[in-house]
Amino acid sequence: MGKKARIKKLKRKLAKLKARLKAAETHRHSVSPLAPKDGFPHLPVIGGVRFSAVQAGVRYPGRVDVMLAELDPGTAVAGVFTRSATRSAPVLDCQAKLGSDPAAGAAFIVNSGNSNAFTGASGERAVAAITEAVAKISGVPENRVYSASTGVIGEPLPYERITAKIEELHGTMAPDAIELAARAILTTDTYAKGAGAEIKVGDNTVRIAGIAKGSGMIAPDMATMLVYIFTDAKVEQALLQRILAQLVDETFNNITVDSDTSTSDSLLLAATGASGVEITENSTAFRDALKGVMLDLAHQVVRDGEGATKFVEIHVTGALSDKDARTHAMAIANSPLVKTAVAGEDPNWGRVVMAIGKSGAAADRDRLSIHFGDILVASQGWVSPAYREDEGAAYMKNDDLLIAVDLGLGAGAATVWTCDLTHGYIQINADYRS
Amino acid sequence: MGKKARIKKLKRKLAKLKARLKAAETHRHSVSPLAPKDGFPHLPVIGGVRFSAVQAGVRYPGRVDVMLAELDPGTAVAGVFTRSATRSAPVLDCQAKLGSDPAAGAAFIVNSGNSNAFTGASGERAVAAITEAVAKISGVPENRVYSASTGVIGEPLPYERITAKIEELHGTMAPDAIELAARAILTTDTYAKGAGAEIKVGDNTVRIAGIAKGSGMIAPDMATMLVYIFTDAKVEQALLQRILAQLVDETFNNITVDSDTSTSDSLLLAATGASGVEITENSTAFRDALKGVMLDLAHQVVRDGEGATKFVEIHVTGALSDKDARTHAMAIANSPLVKTAVAGEDPNWGRVVMAIGKSGAAADRDRLSIHFGDILVASQGWVSPAYREDEGAAYMKNDDLLIAVDLGLGAGAATVWTCDLTHGYIQINADYRS
Repeated sequence: MGKKARIKKLKRKLAKLKARLKAAETHRHSVSPLAPKDGFPHLPVIGGVRFSAVQAGVRYPGRVDVMLAELDPGTAVAGVFTRSATRSAPVLDCQAKLGSDPAAGAAFIVNSGNSNAFTGASGERAVAAITEAVAKISGVPENRVYSASTGVIGEPLPYERITAKIEELHGTMAPDAIELAARAILTTDTYAKGAGAEIKVGDNTVRIAGIAKGSGMIAPDMATMLVYIFTDAKVEQALLQRILAQLVDETFNNITVDSDTSTSDSLLLAATGASGVEITENSTAFRDALKGVMLDLAHQVVRDGEGATKFVEIHVTGALSDKDARTHAMAIANSPLVKTAVAGEDPNWGRVVMAIGKSGAAADRDRLSIHFGDILVASQGWVSPAYREDEGAAYMKNDDLLIAVDLGLGAGAATVWTCDLTHGYIQINADYRS
Repeated sequence: MGKKARIKKLKRKLAKLKARLKAAETHRHSVSPLAPKDGFPHLPVIGGVRFSAVQAGVRYPGRVDVMLAELDPGTAVAGVFTRSATRSAPVLDCQAKLGSDPAAGAAFIVNSGNSNAFTGASGERAVAAITEAVAKISGVPENRVYSASTGVIGEPLPYERITAKIEELHGTMAPDAIELAARAILTTDTYAKGAGAEIKVGDNTVRIAGIAKGSGMIAPDMATMLVYIFTDAKVEQALLQRILAQLVDETFNNITVDSDTSTSDSLLLAATGASGVEITENSTAFRDALKGVMLDLAHQVVRDGEGATKFVEIHVTGALSDKDARTHAMAIANSPLVKTAVAGEDPNWGRVVMAIGKSGAAADRDRLSIHFGDILVASQGWVSPAYREDEGAAYMKNDDLLIAVDLGLGAGAATVWTCDLTHGYIQINADYRS
């Protein structure tokens, strides 16, 4: 064979291999195909909050990795955290500080690259050093400085790299720098996540803006991530905490990527009161707007699920109770076999039946019905007579999917959101530390 | 650049791509790297049992896919089945038949390719047709004919293809054809699984031989698979059932591949009595030998876990109770993040801490200690001072791994076995049906 022919042959081989490789690999650094098409949203500026972010080189150089938010005196702070029995030093510190006096203002300081989790006594020392440094420069008392860390577990946090930057952080704050703050808290995320809302209350406007990070170890309680939400509403601190706890149950606690729960989950909600609009127990417009922001952020976290190529809503009805419905929905959402079927665009409703069967909640095989989108796939213990496999297969090609199950037993209902399980997830997590 | 140099460059590129591709892909049809090196073991022939297998073309042509085992009059049969709420028609039929009169003998008929699960009334008709046909030809009453089906869920079982072969099956039975039977029941398995034992009781010998199938949807209760074990011991049927139930808890219920539970799990244990050796409540030698066979089969199922490249024993001690220890062990074994770390040969003990934290059972971060093999990795809430990452990384290169956790709280202990989560799992399950 001549050299020309050999080159041609090798090039053909190369092209084939490249195509196969592309199918087998998903690049962690490319943006999730499910990311919002318009990029980071334009968020309302919240009176009483200022943001900044810097490159501190906590783990990786060349990226912003520490953010600071300072909040005016009078800002109420509510929080919800992971229930992990091995939660991190910053989480324990934040929990101890909840309920402290709002009059003194507050500050949030967050780093990525290192989670300061399972770091023993050194972890507590790191938290103390960071929150002390923020308190000293900002004038906010230390018991109002909330810190968080996200990244690798079990390695000592090089906190001097952070404390060395506090002055720069404090000196460069701006009310409209929330997007930069959103970028500083990312780890394996492929895009920065933000959501906002504005509501009219009489002649006034109440504004809400939130940011989130999270793409793996996403499961209740609560979804594994960091979330910071800010509003200029005026809300009494205990009420703010009640509202938050209730809405977390309706939003972040209903998403799952891989059933794993982080040791660092933290959600903080700050209400500065700058709008002058007072929120009471019955302010449903505020609750609805806040829930909208939380749900938007929760969905964005699922859409950035490690390796995700499909966003899946699991809607279960007809269960004996809401709790049973949620158990079934989570069993479907967390089943590796369901998740890989979705990845393969395979309308494999048999695996949905399997997941319902194993969930432990009540089910009757012969009363089940399953829809994929609007398509009735199975009912009365068997595939629906009208169902055509090619219809199901065509539906599964969509980016956003609905799997709806009716158990035919009662009035219990639940909705959860998840993503598929792909080669990308394996790739990201089989070499995260190396 | 000259043609020679271009060829050289292209060849280099090709070699690189091939290496990356090899890492990214795992071929489902190649035998698991964790399979027993010596192939299918030489099993003792059990008096009172005969086996046969045929190609019935249930789903795929060119492979044996139906097996029959006929058992002499007087054979006691015990069984354990999936607890799935959506279990298959054959499982329901077998459960109803447990406890029927041993005097009449028994028969086991099993097909692969189609699980006859979630097939409504047609599923029950298929079971009836198959067991009736076996009863007619073998002379075993229908209430002693136990059937099982494994494969795709939700598609009607083409049972005529099986009933058409019953005469051939009955006519070709042989006492030493157990390996062929083991091959007929495989689905995504990459090798046939068998295990056996012989024990001396006075001048007599008691023999045990078992076969199993299973490689995905492996989780309690019980591990998703089909298992058939035969012994020539003489055991009263109720006692046989008690022994089996106890030993399943110590063996098959402690393995997990992907946390998914099949709708078809079945384990049948038949005691023909041909050895004349009577087993009583206190026959520990028999129990130990039977447990050895069951554990061997259970481990073989894990070693054939879909895409598995590592066999992992999780050993938890120091828990408040055995139940707590098992909860922790299963949380570690089922964590996608732990399983992908193992796949990546990453000694990521932080993910083990995470899994313990999320399990829901009692744990104290600062009392935990973690070993990888003999290497103390973490203790007292932090990485062990003597631990060196390169030591951990070297250990993780082994095929067989031990992750040992001591909680430092009490005397509860548990051991479970699992495998890693790799590209191979995704590849197998994202296109199983297509």
